[in-house]
Amino acid sequence: MKKHNFSAGPSILSPYTIKNTADGIMDLNNSGLSVMEISHRSKDFMAIMDETQQLFVELLDIPTGYSVLLLQGGASMQFCMIPYNLLKTKAAYLDTGAWANKAVKEAKLFGDVDVVASSKDTTYSYIPKGYAIPSDVDYFHITTNNTIYGTEIKEDMDSPVNLVADMSSDIFSRPVDVSKYALIYGGAQKNLAPAGVTFVIVKDDILGNMDRAIPTMLDYRTHIDKGSMFNTPPCVSIYAAMHTLRWYKEQGGVAAMYKLNMEKAGMLYDEIERNSVFTSGIGDEADRSIMNVTFVMKDEYKEKEADFLAFAIGRGMSGIKGHRSVGGFRASIYNAMPKSSVEALIDTMKDFEKSL
Amino acid sequence: MKKHNFSAGPSILSPYTIKNTADGIMDLNNSGLSVMEISHRSKDFMAIMDETQQLFVELLDIPTGYSVLLLQGGASMQFCMIPYNLLKTKAAYLDTGAWANKAVKEAKLFGDVDVVASSKDTTYSYIPKGYAIPSDVDYFHITTNNTIYGTEIKEDMDSPVNLVADMSSDIFSRPVDVSKYALIYGGAQKNLAPAGVTFVIVKDDILGNMDRAIPTMLDYRTHIDKGSMFNTPPCVSIYAAMHTLRWYKEQGGVAAMYKLNMEKAGMLYDEIERNSVFTSGIGDEADRSIMNVTFVMKDEYKEKEADFLAFAIGRGMSGIKGHRSVGGFRASIYNAMPKSSVEALIDTMKDFEKSL
Repeated sequence: MKKHNFSAGPSILSPYTIKNTADGIMDLNNSGLSVMEISHRSKDFMAIMDETQQLFVELLDIPTGYSVLLLQGGASMQFCMIPYNLLKTKAAYLDTGAWANKAVKEAKLFGDVDVVASSKDTTYSYIPKGYAIPSDVDYFHITTNNTIYGTEIKEDMDSPVNLVADMSSDIFSRPVDVSKYALIYGGAQKNLAPAGVTFVIVKDDILGNMDRAIPTMLDYRTHIDKGSMFNTPPCVSIYAAMHTLRWYKEQGGVAAMYKLNMEKAGMLYDEIERNSVFTSGIGDEADRSIMNVTFVMKDEYKEKEADFLAFAIGRGMSGIKGHRSVGGFRASIYNAMPKSSVEALIDTMKDFEKSL
Repeated sequence: MKKHNFSAGPSILSPYTIKNTADGIMDLNNSGLSVMEISHRSKDFMAIMDETQQLFVELLDIPTGYSVLLLQGGASMQFCMIPYNLLKTKAAYLDTGAWANKAVKEAKLFGDVDVVASSKDTTYSYIPKGYAIPSDVDYFHITTNNTIYGTEIKEDMDSPVNLVADMSSDIFSRPVDVSKYALIYGGAQKNLAPAGVTFVIVKDDILGNMDRAIPTMLDYRTHIDKGSMFNTPPCVSIYAAMHTLRWYKEQGGVAAMYKLNMEKAGMLYDEIERNSVFTSGIGDEADRSIMNVTFVMKDEYKEKEADFLAFAIGRGMSGIKGHRSVGGFRASIYNAMPKSSVEALIDTMKDFEKSL
C-alpha cells in the first residue's frame, strides 16, 4: 500500500531528492567514493556547497549584501545565536506558539525582551494583529509558520527595526521579499533536506556591532568569512538540500511551489469546511497555514477521533495525528507532497463521513 | 580502478555502513518511507537512536554514571560548550596541534587558561612529556590524536582533575578506560559516520555547578534530560553511525579494531623506515599515530614530492597529500580502511623507490 507521508518534520522529501541522495551515498559522480567519505575541501564537495548556496540566492531572489549560511544545530541553536549576535539591550518578539516561546526564553539570557503580542490564551489558534513593533529595540522576531497549531504569517511585513524570521516550516513555500528581513533562518527538515543542516540568510551589515565576546562557532561572521566551511559541514544533508533545490528550480521555482501549495491547502480546507464531521481549529481564514493543515472533530463526533485515525492509517495516511498539545489532526502538506496524496486524504475524510 | 581512500576526514566508511545507509534512504525497514523523512519521535527512529547510544556503551564499556549524547556542531562547537559548562575560574590545556589550539582560544573567553605544555616549536612533531597537570584547575583538556601532524596519545593518563579529551579522530580505534575521563567528545566524520553528528560521553556528576547562565542548547544537562532529542537530531548521520557500530561489534569490537589498526600502522611505519626515499616526520615512535601516518621525502628526494603524489594518484591512492601546514604525505588509515589498501600504498611506495 502506498504511504502518504503527512509527517510534520522530518517530513516528506521529493522522490528526486531521495533517489539522488541514495545514489550519491553509493557513489558520488562516478568517483568511486561515497559523498559520506570525501573531504569537505575536495573539488566535488566544494561544488555541492557552492551550488546549494547559489540556488538559495536564485530561488529566493536574495539581494546582494546578504549571506547564505549552512550551519548545524537547528532553529533551536539559532534561538541563542540570534541574541548573541544582535541583542544589545532589548528585542521584541511575537509569541505565536511553542517555538516562538522557546526563542523568547533564550533571548532573555542576553537582554530585555518585549513580547509585543501573544495568542497563548487560545492555545495559539490565531496570529495576533494590531500590535505595534517598537522602534527602540534591536530587532523584531517572528515565527512565520507555526507547525503545531497550523497558523501562518503569509505576508512579508514592514518593520521599523531589523526583522528576524524563523521560517523553518515555510521557507520555499511562497515567494518572500528577502529585502524586508534582516535575518531569515530555519531547520532544513521540512522543505529542504533531512535534519542536520540549518540555513541562515543574513544581511551582512547588521553584524559586528556587539560589545560582548561571541564564541567563534556562534558568531555569524565566522561562517560568512569561511563560506560555511569554518569546520566540517553536514555534507550529506547539504547534498540532499542541493537536490531539493534543483528540483524546485526544475518545477518552476518558488512561484510554482506557491501555486501548488495554495491549490493543495485550498482543496483540503474546502473539504474540512464541507465535511460534517470535521472543523478547522483556526477561526480566521487569513491565518490558516498552507503547510500544516490542522483540523478537529466537530463536538458531536469528538468520541470518534481514534476511529478516524485508525481508518486513515488503514488507508495509508501517515503522520496525521495532531500534536499532543492541541489534539485532533494535522496534515503537513509541504512542497514535496503531491496533490494526489492530498486527494487521497480528502477521499478518506469523505469515506469516513459516509461510514458513520 | 579501485580507489584507496586515505582522506583525513570526512573519511572512509565501511561498505556495510555505506550500503545500509543508502538502503535506509531509499526505504527504511520496508516502511515505504525514507529514513530522511520520518519523525524523530517515530518508533522507527527512536529505535535507531537507542541502539546507537547502547552500542557506544557496549563497545567502549562505558561505566554507569555517564551519558552518551549525539549532538550537532562538531568538535568546534564542543570547544565552546566545554568551558561554558565546566570552566569556573581556570582550566589547563595541552597544546598538541591546531585543534588543541582552537580549543584553547575558545576557553579563554570563559576564564583563565593554563597551557601546561606545547610542541608548537617543532610544528607539533611530538607529544610533550614531563609536564605536571595542575591540581587547582577545573579540568585538563587533551587532544588524543592530532590528525594534521600524525601524533597520538595512545594511553589513558591519570589526572588529578577532570580529564576532558577530544577523540574526534581516534575514538573506537583502541580500547579506552572511560572511567579515567570526565568527558570525551568528537566529530563523527572519522571512525563513525558522515559529518553532522557529534558524540559527547560525559560523567553526569561533573555538571550543574556553574554560576553562569548557559543557553539551553549549549547546556549538556538539556541533552541528557531529553536523551539527545531536545530538538531534531541529525537523523541520517545517526543512522549511519548505528551501522558503523553494528559493524564494529560484528568484527569483534574495539579490541579487534585495535589489533587491526596496530597491524596496518606497523606495516606502514616499517615501510617508511625501510624505504630509502621516505622518512617519518614523527621522531618518537611512541608518539606515532595509528590513525594518521605522516611521512615526508628524505632531504635528497625533496624535489620528487610532486612526482610521488602523481605516481600514487595514478595507482588509485586518494587523499594522501599532507596538510598544507606540514607538507609531505599523510595516509589516514581509520578503522574502515582495509589492510589491502595499506598494502597497496606500501607497494606504491616500493615501486616508486624502484623507479628512481
